Amino acid sequence: MKTVFSLEQIRKISSELRKNGRTIGFIPTMGALHAGHLKLVKESKNKNDVTVVSIFVNPAQFSPTEDLVKYPRPFEQDKQLLEQEKIDYLFYPNAKTMYPNGFQTYVTPNNLSNILEGKSRPGHFSGVATVVLKLSNLVNPIHAYFGQKDFQQSVVVKQMVYDLNLPININVVPTVRDKDGLALSSRNIFLNPQERSQALSLYQSLLLAKKLILSGNKSVQLIKKEMKNYLQKNKLIQLDYIEICNPENLSPLKVTPKKAVILIAAFVGKTRLIDNIII
Amino acid sequence: MKTVFSLEQIRKISSELRKNGRTIGFIPTMGALHAGHLKLVKESKNKNDVTVVSIFVNPAQFSPTEDLVKYPRPFEQDKQLLEQEKIDYLFYPNAKTMYPNGFQTYVTPNNLSNILEGKSRPGHFSGVATVVLKLSNLVNPIHAYFGQKDFQQSVVVKQMVYDLNLPININVVPTVRDKDGLALSSRNIFLNPQERSQALSLYQSLLLAKKLILSGNKSVQLIKKEMKNYLQKNKLIQLDYIEICNPENLSPLKVTPKKAVILIAAFVGKTRLIDNIII
Repeated sequence: MKTVFSLEQIRKISSELRKNGRTIGFIPTMGALHAGHLKLVKESKNKNDVTVVSIFVNPAQFSPTEDLVKYPRPFEQDKQLLEQEKIDYLFYPNAKTMYPNGFQTYVTPNNLSNILEGKSRPGHFSGVATVVLKLSNLVNPIHAYFGQKDFQQSVVVKQMVYDLNLPININVVPTVRDKDGLALSSRNIFLNPQERSQALSLYQSLLLAKKLILSGNKSVQLIKKEMKNYLQKNKLIQLDYIEICNPENLSPLKVTPKKAVILIAAFVGKTRLIDNIII
Repeated sequence: MKTVFSLEQIRKISSELRKNGRTIGFIPTMGALHAGHLKLVKESKNKNDVTVVSIFVNPAQFSPTEDLVKYPRPFEQDKQLLEQEKIDYLFYPNAKTMYPNGFQTYVTPNNLSNILEGKSRPGHFSGVATVVLKLSNLVNPIHAYFGQKDFQQSVVVKQMVYDLNLPININVVPTVRDKDGLALSSRNIFLNPQERSQALSLYQSLLLAKKLILSGNKSVQLIKKEMKNYLQKNKLIQLDYIEICNPENLSPLKVTPKKAVILIAAFVGKTRLIDNIII
């Protein structure tokens, strides 16, 4: 594994690889890698000649009130994990080269950026779309990999790829969970034992909703009410939203059809977590 | 010359060309071609293995009150001109394939889109940047060519290329003028003889400013005043703005330094024209 810091160098490498007909698989990450990221890496390695992982805590997707500074950055540990996975290149740019003075061009998915996570986190998806486009232009992959845990992010990226005619295939890989069901997230390290225990209720409430739907309940209002009731027992949980949506475009549903995604976001103590399941 | 209508086909063609190591030069246009466009074509042909011209009247860069519907579309004439120039591919997509239902991802140069043309035409440069990015992703050029006449557009595109790490070189080609000095524009056909005659005062006012600066006047306020006085004699001219700016980032100047761009926009009758000179 080679670690690449400069934009010029990664561009040169990817350009040479593509010229030689090699396929590149790309996993953009913010580091603090866990088994969810490593599953994306494995998918890429199975399908492409060369796998590139980027680690970049993207300031453009954090609002001033969010946890940019305290976001975990265990770089040496991440590097070791990626070496064990035998990826080809780790791209590790810094914020000043990614967003130099005068930087001003942002990519915005107008509708998707204002709902759900976008509503709670103004500017977030503009930051996500912008950095994914920048990184993709540098890495020049055929395939890029995203986790289902950040479901709306994957919809935003797919929409961007379609709208901007990018020659990239977006692969969304199912969420990896701890044995007790907690969706893996780099932010889980912020949870104390009591919070971690109550955080399980997010996934449990999603499973409850799934059970209700599979047993014939179609009213989104009723399902959301049952989920809220369930969550209320956990005093450290402050619900942000529950929504049941069309998984293609995230438009909210009133009646559950055959295919839907149930999304939840909540603060657990001071840590904001998200989760979802597709039914 | 081959005319290509579908996005899939142009992508396939450009992908094959690049795979075979051929360099592509690209000239995105809105058609209604004149000698200014053809100069861009000639530059591209001199420098690249293959030249692609697109003709697409981009709805995203017109506001609802602007002249999208009446914008000239002499397609057969344009096609003949390009055949005479022996370009390789004419890419001629339609609005529905470029902006399908649900399209929502726009590229915006935040600062540049709010000044000068952007101030007078809200959303214009977001439309320009978005379509240039889309077309570039499809055509995959090494070089793209833009006319200096649309000076701010060229600054926006260069900024986008830099900010989004696009692997494209932007070439800005000097404005082509009629013998009497009028900058060639597809919108000149809207001018009646009297308007056309008064439209000359735009370039003349720019030359006046240049003369003032070269003879030692440094006060932008004074130069603008002299230009306005000159223009006022022409009753069909309704000035929108005169600005003297840093040509790299279009920040307005108060004192003219060694390098500056003087930009003017005005309605001549009902037709809005722009022009500029670099000193």
